[in-house]
Formats: sequence, C-alpha cells, structure tokens
Amino acid sequence: MEHLYIIKIGGNVIDDDDKLAGFLDDFATIEGYKILVHGGGRLTTTLAERLGIKQQLVDGRRITDADTLRIAVMVYAGYINKTIVSLLQARGCNAIGLTGADGNLLFAHRRDHPEIDYGFVGDIDTVNSILINEFLDDGYTLVVAPLTHDGHGQLLNTNADTVAREIAIALSSEHEVSLIYTFEKRGVLLDLNDENSMVKQLTHPEYKMLRKQEKIGSGMIPKLDNAFASLKAGVKKVSIGSSEDLKDLIKGQAGTSLLNE
Amino acid sequence: MEHLYIIKIGGNVIDDDDKLAGFLDDFATIEGYKILVHGGGRLTTTLAERLGIKQQLVDGRRITDADTLRIAVMVYAGYINKTIVSLLQARGCNAIGLTGADGNLLFAHRRDHPEIDYGFVGDIDTVNSILINEFLDDGYTLVVAPLTHDGHGQLLNTNADTVAREIAIALSSEHEVSLIYTFEKRGVLLDLNDENSMVKQLTHPEYKMLRKQEKIGSGMIPKLDNAFASLKAGVKKVSIGSSEDLKDLIKGQAGTSLLNE
Repeated sequence: MEHLYIIKIGGNVIDDDDKLAGFLDDFATIEGYKILVHGGGRLTTTLAERLGIKQQLVDGRRITDADTLRIAVMVYAGYINKTIVSLLQARGCNAIGLTGADGNLLFAHRRDHPEIDYGFVGDIDTVNSILINEFLDDGYTLVVAPLTHDGHGQLLNTNADTVAREIAIALSSEHEVSLIYTFEKRGVLLDLNDENSMVKQLTHPEYKMLRKQEKIGSGMIPKLDNAFASLKAGVKKVSIGSSEDLKDLIKGQAGTSLLNE
Repeated sequence: MEHLYIIKIGGNVIDDDDKLAGFLDDFATIEGYKILVHGGGRLTTTLAERLGIKQQLVDGRRITDADTLRIAVMVYAGYINKTIVSLLQARGCNAIGLTGADGNLLFAHRRDHPEIDYGFVGDIDTVNSILINEFLDDGYTLVVAPLTHDGHGQLLNTNADTVAREIAIALSSEHEVSLIYTFEKRGVLLDLNDENSMVKQLTHPEYKMLRKQEKIGSGMIPKLDNAFASLKAGVKKVSIGSSEDLKDLIKGQAGTSLLNE
C-alpha cells in the first residue's frame, strides 16, 4: 500500500503568483504518489465580467449557464491547469494535467434538483481509479481541474473540494490516502477573527456541536462536510490548513486534523 | 510495428459544430493507434477582440505576446481540447487531451530569430515518445493541443502542423506512421478555384517545380514543407485532404498523397 497525498488548493493560492510558486516548491518536494486538485480563481469572474457575462446566483449558489461553463473550461482546464503543470515541470515534478473527461477520469451526471436548476453542474458517479493508478505507478503527478463529463459529450462544472473528496475515497481501498484541504486560514478557527483560536484536532461529534452553536463559518461547512465524509468512507487522514504550511501539514504539524470518532 | 494514424485538424473543422461532429464520428471509428492534433479556431481571435487585445503581425506572422499566449492556452488547452475529448468519449473513444507541458510531451525553446521577436513561440527540441507509447499501448487516443513548454515554467505557442510533424517523426522508428493533414480543400490543387485540379500524388521534385512556377498557394507551402520533411525523416505515408473525407483519406482513396522520390 503506497501512501498517496491528495492536496486541494483554492483561489487564494491560484491568484497570487508568489504564493503559488512557494506552494509548488513545497508540493514538488513531496516524495511518492501525489495528486493536486485545484479550484478556480478570480480569473473566471474577471473574464466573465470583461466579456459581459452575468453571473447568476440562486440562494447564494452560482449557476453554471452555457457561457459560464465555457469560461470555466477555458480558465480551469486551460490557463490554471497548464500554468500549474508547466511550473511543476520546471521543479522536476513530472506533472500531467487532466479534467474528468480525459480518460473518463470523472464520470458525472448533471445535477437534478427539485427546485433549483444549477445548469451545467455535475455530481460525480464514478472515479476511474484504474487510470489514476496507471499514472501514479508510472511516476506521474496528476493535476486535476474541477470539471467532469457525462459521457454524452457534455462537460460539467464540479466543486473542487468534492472532486478531491471523491478521488480520495475511490483510491482509499488501494492506498493509504492523506487528503489535505488548503485554504487561506491556518486551520479550523473557533473565532474567525483570531488565528490563535485554531483547533489542532476536531472530531465529528465536536464538529456537530460547534455547528449547532454556530461557531463554524458558513464557508467552512461544505469543506468540513466533505472532509468528514471522506474519513467515513475510508480515507486514512484528512486535514485542513494554510497552503503556506504545506510542509508541516504533510508532517501533521500544522492545521486541523479531523477525526471520525 | 503498430500502424499509427496522426491526424491534424484546423480551424475549418473546429469552428463548425456539425463538421466537427461528423469528423469525430469518422475519427472514432479508426481502429488501433491514433493521435489527433488540433489547431486553433476563430475563438482565439474573437476572444482577443472582445478583450481588446490587439493581434500583432510582423511580416504576416502573428506575434504571441503574453496576453495572446494566455488566450491561446485558454482556448487551445481549455475549450477546444476538452470539447474534443468529451465528444470523443461520447463516441466510445477513450481520449486524453494533452499539451506539450503535460508529462513533458513536447519540450521546446523560445524561437530565437535574428530579426523578428515572435514572442512566446516555441520550436520543438524533443518529443517524449516514451510517454506517447505508454498511452497508446494502454489503449488511449491522444488529443494534442499546439502548446509546448521550455522546462522553466514557460508555456509556448507552436504551430499545429509542426506539432503533428514532430510527433510523426519521433514515432516513426517504432510505428508505421500515417500522417494526414486535413484542411478545407480536397487536396493539393493546381488551380485554387477549381477543386477538380487536385493532384492525387505529388512527388518532392514535382512540388519544387510547381512552387517555382508559383502554382502552390502561399498558405499551402508551410503545410507541404512540413509534409515532405516528415517523409524524409521516416514517416511512412503523408497525405493531405478534406476533413470531410477522413474515411477515404485513411484508405488512400482521397486527397493528395505525397511521395519523397
């Protein structure tokens, strides 16, 4: 059983050239099997604005219409994915960038919601773990863009946290998977304005209690739900912390470790 | 020795949804090893115009400045590449889309020209034929975008005809390679206004003569130069014809076959 690191980065790293360079320096030094899952960044929004494409929000959730999907594909699969791949190659890390359509990596269906039409948003049905293992065994590092496909020629937009979770779960039967969600904070904070309020460990019962007490920021809830779902489904370790602390996150010496007991 | 088809398509197919669908129907039915190399389409130009990025031309050649490269990466590696991959997946063809940065597929250097600064344009140094063979042997079809990288984190724009040629040459020692350039005409025409003036075969001495007589359109010259260079370097068969005739081009029953004698 190989140890496999699955690291997710978001817009705060992608939008900052220096932060991205520093993060990739650290990422490239991780030995063994590793996968990087990236989200989008500001570029998607600014490009949509410059092209006069209005972003629709329903209940605070972004709707992916055809124009927005086209921009997401250009930015996620094109600009962000290939920039990261070329920067990793420069660091001696043999990266290959993929979307869910490539090699049928992430097979999904368009979200079917009783009330809201999310547009071209995909919920993942299957992860092609055979393909991923072929790449990892051949020594490649995968860089995955948050796009899936429905097998009928339709690309779909899928949340990057969810992509990371689904890949982690699918590979957990064959590998000892560590899933690390990085973001702009040091870890899970009990007081959003106080970085010192970070908890080093968070169990599922504690999380449920803190949620009830409304001590968890609303932006953190889907991330933590994803994290606990991963643990429950067999992922060995899940942690959450700052992209700037990647080296220590790997060692378990930074961020918040989530525990399923 | 496996037979390997390398097919290049250009903007005339990419810009027309119906033509693209028909072409991919035919492409998906090709048995055995195959690689699709695509160029750009009108989207690159229209997107640049909508974003107010001026296209610079020097001596009729497009200069790839930083903004233009960013658009090329978004359109080629993002929109076009992933649209084709998802459409091929829908046709039962297990496609994977790559740029030259992915897995160090196409290693290049920025063009060094004594008079013209072409900007971020790459001339290919090495093709990673080991990686390509791994994919082909595992049953994948490659879809290659015309982007290369310099190994120092810089993506570069490279002509798609040249990408097809370099891949064909690199793989010709291990495979029986057929390289097919498709475009909007039936083949090489002696009179651009008369589709019936197509020649079924064209030898290199004949080509040189026709060129001297200015009977070859200026747009065809780089394409034919690439084609004859491929033959000279060991590619078994090179032909040129309409994307709508792919099935017959494969059988050698359409287009112009080039001969190196």
